[in-house]
Amino acid sequence: MDSTYQRMSDLQLPDLIQGILNGERAFLSRGITLVESKKAEDQRLSAQLMDQMIQKKPESLRIGITGVPGVGKSTFIDAFGTMLTGMGKKVAVLSVDPSSNRSKGSILGDKTRMEHLSKDPNAFIRPSASGNSLGGITSKTREAILLCEVAGFDVVIVATVGVGQNEAVVKEVVDYFLLLMLAGSGDELQGIKRGIMEMADHILINKADQGNVKAAKQAQKNYENIMPLLPPNEADWKVPVDLCSAIEKMGIENAWEDIKKYKEKTCQTGWFMENRKRQLLKWFHRRIQSKLEENFYTRPDIKDEIRKKEALISAQKISVRKAVDGLFNA
Amino acid sequence: MDSTYQRMSDLQLPDLIQGILNGERAFLSRGITLVESKKAEDQRLSAQLMDQMIQKKPESLRIGITGVPGVGKSTFIDAFGTMLTGMGKKVAVLSVDPSSNRSKGSILGDKTRMEHLSKDPNAFIRPSASGNSLGGITSKTREAILLCEVAGFDVVIVATVGVGQNEAVVKEVVDYFLLLMLAGSGDELQGIKRGIMEMADHILINKADQGNVKAAKQAQKNYENIMPLLPPNEADWKVPVDLCSAIEKMGIENAWEDIKKYKEKTCQTGWFMENRKRQLLKWFHRRIQSKLEENFYTRPDIKDEIRKKEALISAQKISVRKAVDGLFNA
Repeated sequence: MDSTYQRMSDLQLPDLIQGILNGERAFLSRGITLVESKKAEDQRLSAQLMDQMIQKKPESLRIGITGVPGVGKSTFIDAFGTMLTGMGKKVAVLSVDPSSNRSKGSILGDKTRMEHLSKDPNAFIRPSASGNSLGGITSKTREAILLCEVAGFDVVIVATVGVGQNEAVVKEVVDYFLLLMLAGSGDELQGIKRGIMEMADHILINKADQGNVKAAKQAQKNYENIMPLLPPNEADWKVPVDLCSAIEKMGIENAWEDIKKYKEKTCQTGWFMENRKRQLLKWFHRRIQSKLEENFYTRPDIKDEIRKKEALISAQKISVRKAVDGLFNA
Repeated sequence: MDSTYQRMSDLQLPDLIQGILNGERAFLSRGITLVESKKAEDQRLSAQLMDQMIQKKPESLRIGITGVPGVGKSTFIDAFGTMLTGMGKKVAVLSVDPSSNRSKGSILGDKTRMEHLSKDPNAFIRPSASGNSLGGITSKTREAILLCEVAGFDVVIVATVGVGQNEAVVKEVVDYFLLLMLAGSGDELQGIKRGIMEMADHILINKADQGNVKAAKQAQKNYENIMPLLPPNEADWKVPVDLCSAIEKMGIENAWEDIKKYKEKTCQTGWFMENRKRQLLKWFHRRIQSKLEENFYTRPDIKDEIRKKEALISAQKISVRKAVDGLFNA
């Protein structure tokens, strides 16, 4: 284990804060580990840490990137992020992987799959929050984003495997949502659902290279035809449907141009800040939700009661309604 | 408004229970309205009602049916349900429509779209639970299912528009999950995601009629190729991929044969009851979740505090973590 992951107890909070503000990746890592911790003492320190961070309001852009396994997310992020660091920007990549009910969606953010970015001194890559409570994931990811920002990262990419519910979490924490798609064979396998397309601020058909250009152009046309059928984009933004090839570095700059246009436009209309405000409030309520459950389920008297009720329910001796009423009236 | 929807206060609970046990649809309707009500008095009566119902353990089969808008769900259910009533069975159709975050998914269960079943004395059609709390929808739907069953309905169909999250709710309350698909043009539009296919116990490609047979067979082949790539079915059941035409009544009986085989097999292996037990326990915890939030948000002192914290969060004067900690420490 890396020595940077040493226990927080060995480190004083002011040092940690200073390290993060200095943009030191090792301290940033430790900060994220701290806010992700469930230990009471770590939680107390996290509250202090995050409260220091609220005062800083850095300029930043949060970009969500999703797509089904095999779409080339890591390769795209590697090329996209390297282009940005080449422009003098600092780029953080966080991955989110809420475990789905059945399939154990593969973890993104494997550093070895981002060969340039993983060695780039101006990049920070971190496989981040996973779990099964939406509130928990949102909180962890949002705090990680804030820490990256105060550490001076201009662009924070939140990546996830597009398997269904993950995108909704990502949508809640980013300014811009980019959906990577594939053209060609196996459209049924690709299985991007309409709901995800509705969330997208940008559709980018990857792997438009080699023998695949014609199919990619056809897919572009198809998606362009679909877009007007979807509900209008919340930001009143005409969602671009473009081609790219992460391997051939084609279409990457173009995507960044569009993203800049989006930021400019939505800063003018006020949507940019309005959206961030709404996201904060949603996060607030998600966190309340998590806290309610945490407090309830960890009560020793309740634990026992729940086991008893579960036995009665399994034996069909009591209705669920009565069991729950019983818990709350006790 | 139909007189059968008169206020519960005009009706005594024992009469309601007797009416439901007699299989009278008007009473069944009122029972469902009662358990869906949020009024304290109705909740009290509902608890009594549901507790009477737990004692009855009727034989029944709960079938979930989903598919994207346009796949022909109403037509399929009309044909499928009419075939079952023709066999002497009583069929209930409940629809579930959790409002999605963005698109307001169209309500299924429009009786006029099930022209035969809606006039069938052995059928009961009810556009049922909607809302945005998963726990709330699950509870309402499950209680509606139980009421249908004690009212003597042998097959309860729970239908939903396949737009993403709805299927997860349906999967939690049924024994068998049937996914309707389309072949032919616009596969991207159809956008059934992999996660839904993983839930399915049966894939039925509808509209395999007229000029569409060839495309349907091709789709069948494609889906059959995909199935082995998905995680194994929980019930150790080989998921059929079949064709049907609800309009031409082709493939409907075949589907029913498969469903019967499933029930027989899973009753033998024990999965059928094991699954129902797991669903009950999940429902229990979902209901706890709902109750926790309900109790919290309706506290008068909390309402005020939440408004204050929201203002501070919006103005970025306080971190979400601190705001929530503040609420719970007060």
